[in-house]
Amino acid sequence: MTKTSTRLALAALVSLPAVAIAQPAAMPTVDPMVAELRDAALEDELAWELLEGLTTEVGPRLAGTEAEARARDWAVEHLTELGFANVRVEEFTMPTWVRGEEKAEIIAPFPQELVLTALGNSGSTGPDGLEAEVIGYADYPSFLADDPANQAGKIVFISHAMPRNQDGSGYSPAFGSPRWFGPNEAASRGAAAIIVKSIGTEHDRTPHTGNTNFQPGVTPIPAAALAIPDANQLMRVLERADGPVTMKLLLTPRNIGEQVSGNVIAEVPGRNPDAKKLQVACHLDSWDNSVGAFDDGAGCAIVAAAAKRIMEAGRPMRTIEIVWYGAEEVGIWGGRDFAARHDGTDYHAVAESDFGADRVWKVTTNFGEGRRAEADGLRAALVPLGIVPGEYDQAGGADIGPLMREGAPGLSLRQDGTRYFDLHHTPNDTLDQVDPEQLRQNVAAWTAMLAYLSGGIE
Amino acid sequence: MTKTSTRLALAALVSLPAVAIAQPAAMPTVDPMVAELRDAALEDELAWELLEGLTTEVGPRLAGTEAEARARDWAVEHLTELGFANVRVEEFTMPTWVRGEEKAEIIAPFPQELVLTALGNSGSTGPDGLEAEVIGYADYPSFLADDPANQAGKIVFISHAMPRNQDGSGYSPAFGSPRWFGPNEAASRGAAAIIVKSIGTEHDRTPHTGNTNFQPGVTPIPAAALAIPDANQLMRVLERADGPVTMKLLLTPRNIGEQVSGNVIAEVPGRNPDAKKLQVACHLDSWDNSVGAFDDGAGCAIVAAAAKRIMEAGRPMRTIEIVWYGAEEVGIWGGRDFAARHDGTDYHAVAESDFGADRVWKVTTNFGEGRRAEADGLRAALVPLGIVPGEYDQAGGADIGPLMREGAPGLSLRQDGTRYFDLHHTPNDTLDQVDPEQLRQNVAAWTAMLAYLSGGIE
Repeated sequence: MTKTSTRLALAALVSLPAVAIAQPAAMPTVDPMVAELRDAALEDELAWELLEGLTTEVGPRLAGTEAEARARDWAVEHLTELGFANVRVEEFTMPTWVRGEEKAEIIAPFPQELVLTALGNSGSTGPDGLEAEVIGYADYPSFLADDPANQAGKIVFISHAMPRNQDGSGYSPAFGSPRWFGPNEAASRGAAAIIVKSIGTEHDRTPHTGNTNFQPGVTPIPAAALAIPDANQLMRVLERADGPVTMKLLLTPRNIGEQVSGNVIAEVPGRNPDAKKLQVACHLDSWDNSVGAFDDGAGCAIVAAAAKRIMEAGRPMRTIEIVWYGAEEVGIWGGRDFAARHDGTDYHAVAESDFGADRVWKVTTNFGEGRRAEADGLRAALVPLGIVPGEYDQAGGADIGPLMREGAPGLSLRQDGTRYFDLHHTPNDTLDQVDPEQLRQNVAAWTAMLAYLSGGIE
Repeated sequence: MTKTSTRLALAALVSLPAVAIAQPAAMPTVDPMVAELRDAALEDELAWELLEGLTTEVGPRLAGTEAEARARDWAVEHLTELGFANVRVEEFTMPTWVRGEEKAEIIAPFPQELVLTALGNSGSTGPDGLEAEVIGYADYPSFLADDPANQAGKIVFISHAMPRNQDGSGYSPAFGSPRWFGPNEAASRGAAAIIVKSIGTEHDRTPHTGNTNFQPGVTPIPAAALAIPDANQLMRVLERADGPVTMKLLLTPRNIGEQVSGNVIAEVPGRNPDAKKLQVACHLDSWDNSVGAFDDGAGCAIVAAAAKRIMEAGRPMRTIEIVWYGAEEVGIWGGRDFAARHDGTDYHAVAESDFGADRVWKVTTNFGEGRRAEADGLRAALVPLGIVPGEYDQAGGADIGPLMREGAPGLSLRQDGTRYFDLHHTPNDTLDQVDPEQLRQNVAAWTAMLAYLSGGIE
């Protein structure tokens, strides 16, 4: 399946250029050492070993909990064992929310349980739960357009129709607003609670959690995501009911105050300590409902395995800094803490792997016009992996965002997101979902990128 | 995907006969009325409407509970509305088991929660749960071969490697023994509890429940199925642990004594009340963890929609009896009750739809050699739906099994089971999974079968 889809994508590429874009210039030639390191990485075993180890021996690792602390200990132990230098943790604290019980039941007219999960920062129903009438909307604009008087005291339900796209573009405000903005808005309008259709693309009874936020002065209400089949079921119940649909919710999450998180940092020291550095990043925390293989154990495994390959090949001119960020899911606390302590202008390039474990399909950069030739050389080094050359003014990542805003040039090795939002923030984000062959292609892409940008390995 | 796989299957068929079987005889011609009714049924809307109604307005319907009673009320109301004759319920009672809480947690060495669900007839851990060391086996024979002294007082974990097959043949003792026989055997050997890898073929965190049985004199122990990724995770934990793996289980199911279930029966009266009848069957009960769209709401919708088409076309010579059986999942109580009250020799043919909602791919019969020409005519009527002619000595179904053992001839319209055991007995058995086009092909197959076997519609 994987091989076939790769082949189909390549076939499409071959037939597209004449139609879609002007005839491209010839690609630059690739340094044989870069090519050799890249191709050797297609046999990588380390990324799988790291990913299996982290997800099995630590498991879920919600930011601010003892599980995330165990993950940091695991990370320090294993990054040290691998021979990286300056392995350390930069700790910080942040307010921490933890899940409680979660149950939903249609009381009338068609009694049955529905599967849901609380959104991060959800309020609590209290231990006795909350019973109220449900008012449903097909999408966020319909909810906004309705009179708040119809919503006060009710359980607001908002659906959406998120599309499945390779580039993950369905995860946008057009479809994600029910989760991102719905709870704050519903609370402001006096709703008793809000339930949204999971922001995802599959049809499993594995609801998608994720953060939401209430603005200062707005008291959090219970806020949860229904599994997608359960949201579709609730919509049918609303359509078929002759009278009001009433529901009982039980959600008992808690805020446990300021807790410790931290970023785990390791280095491959460069020959020239004055040269600008490369940073390769991921986030170590996961949601609490899965082992976070796609989000983002794979990213941590990929960047470390690639850096290890460079270290074994010799000494790069530039220092390579590995950062396994903490507390990304719950508000990018690690990325913000790191940027507050470090200077974005110290970096030659920063890059983050945080979109699963499927193959890299496109490379984009925002090095600026002055480094166009370097950006083209990077693209050339990746073509043999089936990676298409992409935009010159785009790069990003949640954790490296703050550094980039300080001036760090970025690049993105974009992963195929076709099935990413089937798994994202669900209990299904497990090692079972990871395709070892695609994971190795990622390691090869990151290895080629580091070999090329590191200023020469001696 | 569906269309493509159908096309591939047909392509394979075209290339196979010369290799696999002798040149077949020419197919008999098909009565134009049978063909017309069959083809019209490809536009069927009733089966979807019944399936959506049952799964939405009733939801899950565990045998012996008030939910199954609501399902019988719903069934009587809708079968009556559709114009069927003699709509009635034959009640019976049976011992009833209901689920309680269910949690599993690895305590050491790698603390994390695992997802599981109790098996029907599981014992309880009591409200405080049970903590013990886990002993794991790759398959049932390894468990059997080990010394019971190694298992006493422990949580026995048994895995398997069930294959995905179109004909569902992976659901056999070779792979299902951990669930079917494991609990009784582990209890006999003094194990504290047993957890098995879900008997299924997917990688979702939606564990597969299902009945197990303890023999008289064997005290039930807690028995549950881990979701498949969780079973794989536990196997990795056992492999990576330096010392004992300990686990805490909480399972609090209860036996609530003798409860009422029942079979819902409806008829299309035949012109000749002395002619042997046709029975088309399904089961109305479902497991408690889903709305039972594949298992077996779809079957009930298909057989009723097909019978309705015959009724609208005129009056068949033979009476068509629709039976929506009760309490199949928990021990085929409905099928056994029906056979005790009725006589298998009163039937010209019996058939049951209980293998999901995907297309019918093969027809088999066991009419006996004296009715070979009739069996061939049936095959001919189904070929235009892409249904291959199958064995002459095979037919079956859980609920019609007891009638067949009394001498009722049977036939099977076998459904594509490629993804059946992804969904079977899991929370994912929802309406979202049903493909309306394949559901219609089923209705067309059942309509053609009834039109052909009913002795002529006038």
